[in-house]
Amino acid sequence: MTDSAAPAVAIVLAAGLGTRMRSALPKALHPIAGRPMLRHLLAAVEPVFERVVVVVGPEMPAPEKAAAPHPTVVQAERLGTAHAALQAAPLLEGWGGDAAVLYADNPLIRPETLRRLRAARREADLALLAMRPADPGRYGRVIGDGTGGVARIVEWADASEAERAEGLCNAGVVCARAADLLRWLRAVRNDNAKGEYYLTDVVALARAEGRRCVAVEAPEAELRGINSRAELAAAEAEVQAGLRGAALEAGATLVAPETVFLSHDTRLGADVTVGPNVVFGPGVTVEEGAEIRAFSHLEGCVVRRGAIVGPFARLRPGTVVEAGAHVGNFVELKAAVLGEGAKANHLAYLGDATIGAGANIGAGTITCNYDGLAKHRTEIGEGAFIGSDTALVAPVRVGARALVGAGSVITEDVPDDALAIARGRQAVKPGRGFKGKPGKGG
Amino acid sequence: MTDSAAPAVAIVLAAGLGTRMRSALPKALHPIAGRPMLRHLLAAVEPVFERVVVVVGPEMPAPEKAAAPHPTVVQAERLGTAHAALQAAPLLEGWGGDAAVLYADNPLIRPETLRRLRAARREADLALLAMRPADPGRYGRVIGDGTGGVARIVEWADASEAERAEGLCNAGVVCARAADLLRWLRAVRNDNAKGEYYLTDVVALARAEGRRCVAVEAPEAELRGINSRAELAAAEAEVQAGLRGAALEAGATLVAPETVFLSHDTRLGADVTVGPNVVFGPGVTVEEGAEIRAFSHLEGCVVRRGAIVGPFARLRPGTVVEAGAHVGNFVELKAAVLGEGAKANHLAYLGDATIGAGANIGAGTITCNYDGLAKHRTEIGEGAFIGSDTALVAPVRVGARALVGAGSVITEDVPDDALAIARGRQAVKPGRGFKGKPGKGG
Amino acid sequence: MTDSAAPAVAIVLAAGLGTRMRSALPKALHPIAGRPMLRHLLAAVEPVFERVVVVVGPEMPAPEKAAAPHPTVVQAERLGTAHAALQAAPLLEGWGGDAAVLYADNPLIRPETLRRLRAARREADLALLAMRPADPGRYGRVIGDGTGGVARIVEWADASEAERAEGLCNAGVVCARAADLLRWLRAVRNDNAKGEYYLTDVVALARAEGRRCVAVEAPEAELRGINSRAELAAAEAEVQAGLRGAALEAGATLVAPETVFLSHDTRLGADVTVGPNVVFGPGVTVEEGAEIRAFSHLEGCVVRRGAIVGPFARLRPGTVVEAGAHVGNFVELKAAVLGEGAKANHLAYLGDATIGAGANIGAGTITCNYDGLAKHRTEIGEGAFIGSDTALVAPVRVGARALVGAGSVITEDVPDDALAIARGRQAVKPGRGFKGKPGKGG
Repeated sequence: MTDSAAPAVAIVLAAGLGTRMRSALPKALHPIAGRPMLRHLLAAVEPVFERVVVVVGPEMPAPEKAAAPHPTVVQAERLGTAHAALQAAPLLEGWGGDAAVLYADNPLIRPETLRRLRAARREADLALLAMRPADPGRYGRVIGDGTGGVARIVEWADASEAERAEGLCNAGVVCARAADLLRWLRAVRNDNAKGEYYLTDVVALARAEGRRCVAVEAPEAELRGINSRAELAAAEAEVQAGLRGAALEAGATLVAPETVFLSHDTRLGADVTVGPNVVFGPGVTVEEGAEIRAFSHLEGCVVRRGAIVGPFARLRPGTVVEAGAHVGNFVELKAAVLGEGAKANHLAYLGDATIGAGANIGAGTITCNYDGLAKHRTEIGEGAFIGSDTALVAPVRVGARALVGAGSVITEDVPDDALAIARGRQAVKPGRGFKGKPGKGG
Repeated sequence: MTDSAAPAVAIVLAAGLGTRMRSALPKALHPIAGRPMLRHLLAAVEPVFERVVVVVGPEMPAPEKAAAPHPTVVQAERLGTAHAALQAAPLLEGWGGDAAVLYADNPLIRPETLRRLRAARREADLALLAMRPADPGRYGRVIGDGTGGVARIVEWADASEAERAEGLCNAGVVCARAADLLRWLRAVRNDNAKGEYYLTDVVALARAEGRRCVAVEAPEAELRGINSRAELAAAEAEVQAGLRGAALEAGATLVAPETVFLSHDTRLGADVTVGPNVVFGPGVTVEEGAEIRAFSHLEGCVVRRGAIVGPFARLRPGTVVEAGAHVGNFVELKAAVLGEGAKANHLAYLGDATIGAGANIGAGTITCNYDGLAKHRTEIGEGAFIGSDTALVAPVRVGARALVGAGSVITEDVPDDALAIARGRQAVKPGRGFKGKPGKGG
Repeated sequence: MTDSAAPAVAIVLAAGLGTRMRSALPKALHPIAGRPMLRHLLAAVEPVFERVVVVVGPEMPAPEKAAAPHPTVVQAERLGTAHAALQAAPLLEGWGGDAAVLYADNPLIRPETLRRLRAARREADLALLAMRPADPGRYGRVIGDGTGGVARIVEWADASEAERAEGLCNAGVVCARAADLLRWLRAVRNDNAKGEYYLTDVVALARAEGRRCVAVEAPEAELRGINSRAELAAAEAEVQAGLRGAALEAGATLVAPETVFLSHDTRLGADVTVGPNVVFGPGVTVEEGAEIRAFSHLEGCVVRRGAIVGPFARLRPGTVVEAGAHVGNFVELKAAVLGEGAKANHLAYLGDATIGAGANIGAGTITCNYDGLAKHRTEIGEGAFIGSDTALVAPVRVGARALVGAGSVITEDVPDDALAIARGRQAVKPGRGFKGKPGKGG
């Protein structure tokens, strides 16, 4: 859905390495709230632009996947932002609409701001995004033309005192007719200190043709670039604050919101309670009235109504905790379904397992799901009782209402309603008790 | 203990559902620092008022328990605050003293402020609480009568610009002679947009009788209402800051106070050290010189002098960690006494257990305290040594100085000074080693 | 390395008990970022001063160790700061250079500030440190002499309104020629309310001799004293902020920097990722590209390139996690080497163990390293596969590529390439299944 007569393409520059990040990972792939910066930007771009082209660097691992479903072009040499944008030219052949240039390291921009950019383009030949930073520092200044338009962008180094006093700063994002933009991009020169082709120069080229340019102002928080790990952490904090606020608004109690880390897609129902220090990785849904206690870590899982998880629980991808079930401390679930009202309250590892409704999993229960070659499943029937400190060697099935004695190693299926036990017999030798040092442990 | 000649009754309005909370739980029961809002308010009210009546909504679960030992009355229909207060009338028959109306969603009010309210009532016919919020917004304004008294309360919607500029705002709490208050409450009308009976109207009714009204000012932090989850979280943060400051003042070291979550009743002795990220549920006492390490979760327990708990320890209700004992990582204690100098340092579940002084509980020890029908106790004698990975099937007793071999499942009592062992014999089959993929685990 | 012609001795006052700390531990030994305050100060002093003498109180445990390699003198009675400094006199016999007096409860002072203090001494007879606190409160004020020097220090109680308005405050640190300083210290009198000998008085004594005094200004954050647990927590927060900023600058990603607790000596390589809520005790090195996930606790260990630790992992001193190895949830390693690419992903205790490259340690594996008398080592060969829920009774060796069946208690060595199994046989009794209450656990 777009709001413009002429269609528009977004050229997303994602080739930056981010030297100040000191990272081998391309900057666009550093995550915020569990999602790469590039994906944040694409999520804002997709509802506003008819087409998207992503310009990546040669180091980008799996670029098609990173940008999917959008096409990518590679900027083989890093010769500046205008050069990067120009790499998209072959994909813009015959494109009659508009084109905008955006940056993967501006991931917090909102669709509404992009809609305003597009609307401004319809009133002028070129529209750019601008902001008024708390500390304008060395940003290029946007100089007005006295008619509400932009006369020019002046770089900080070239600016007069009066120009430096101007608070409106260039955010670097531009939108123009695609044909204009490509012509200007091709005319940009690199006769500057770094020998780079700067996208900013398209404003001067447009003005030299007598074209009207306008600035669309947006909050600094949206337009501020992310160039260092500290700025990445600050952006993460900003996004987290927004996610927490939305969760509270939707009726979840976060006892200490500032200690809860959400992902971009975390879904918390009404009357969900989240204790202090809980981390939600991507792909988590918690249904109404469920409780996630302190020090829990969830990822790729569903917690259904009224279930209780934690403290100190870890739910890994593929896990479903059914209604009213309990997952207690030091318990890990992976690709496991814990049936309605079932309990696994203490020190357990349940991997690749299906546990029936009302089953009771004793402390220290471990599913031996891996034999060194493949993973195997464990099935536990409804209402079964697994005694503490039991190892279940998968593939194995414990029947409904079966009882497994504490300390057993279960290697064969246990029928419904049967008792299984597999442990050594107790021997006692009087007088051979402990002669060591009391209370001195590991 | 009260400070007033005439006795006073507090009518506590706790019937609100709190639509903005989006919760099925009545607002008054949402907890702050481990205690429902209503209980916070009652704790402030009880030392100041001779009697308390709590007005609850029909949805309140177990209202007698929620308000105990105070009587409750039910407001069956929600027709406004004056209507709510009037529900208490039958219990005020013949009450010769004063009456005040308070709100469960004002839980941070201090007894001292309530004492000032009562004292002000003795100087006037009606006293009300007022505040100067940082953002007065749409609060009703308190308009002076030029003699230090209150002329009237003007609602924001009805206020002139000059009246809106007034910073003193009505907090809604009033105190008057009970007979006056009841008469005024009965005179309140509901001819307004919402068709509700508003408590605020009693001020105009008192003034219409020519009575003197006065305002008692208190900090916004005490009087601000809690109407949303975000405001609940903010109140929690404020209470936590106070509790942390008091703990520091009393001589506890909190390495990172902002990461320690206390309950209203947490008691920390001098020279207690608390690491980062520790959660104290209700009912915890930590004695002098004990250390609670990072990532620990305590509730309803006592940690005695010089004991060490954590990191990653969970102490559940009924637990006592005696002097100099150690509870280590991934260890859960429930209704367990860990004797003086005893150690349970690694991955263990000790539930319904008594462990003697100087005993050593090996890693992976589990008390099998539940057989699916009832809980049973485990007793371990002084100086006993429980080898690692042992299951103790309760009810069972391991004697003093007894030694249990690693990996045992103990189902029968072990006498003092005896050795017990219960495990399979080791078989070795040459050449049948691991043929899988190295280092690929679950 | 120092920058002064004349050598200088630093007299470090570390005798304070800190009554406001309400602690049995001498104030100088309270830690910040895992290091005692005294050690923080010594680390700043050592690069600037040629000699150091530490004045300790009689309660200081192991003073030689606390101050090593610097000599200590004991202030037996607490008669004031001048008296404390004078205790160092016997060690200054014949010292021709300068002497400065510093305080262990000023641990955040920077070497650069101390260098400026020494340089100022060369321009005057006495140099002192001063600051302009946000709230000057009751600090003594530094009164200028109109020539850029100091006329006198006036205590708050004795100050006129005009003097109290002076923002420059005395920080208490002085530097002078050693001979001058000792003469002045001996001349200080105790005819004041508390009957103490105050170091501040040396300024008046120097001025009485017509000597020139100068003030060196430094930020309050460096000079503010630590007198209470709240101030200790604030200093910790300040140091943590600095350490986190440096880690980000060096190219580590801290998803939520404010939840990561570092030690003064934590080393994080480039592209290390640290999740929320991680605690680094002293002596941790994490190499390039390794990942430390949420809720991990590390101390005295090395995590090599590309290794993954956590969530919920605990690494104790003496642990090395080799390149590409994985330590998962609820796993504790102590004095253990986890070989390259090896995995210990779930609920395990590995103490005093060497684990070969590519080995797979099943869930619930426990090394029984302590027999009540001594600790013993476990060795696991390359590519071995330890089935889940296995107890390894040390001393024991599991050979390369050996396979240990799940649920075994291994008490004897297992040869290379062998299979070992040690568990009870499974018995099944039909119809004797679970008759209890479904889903009611622990």
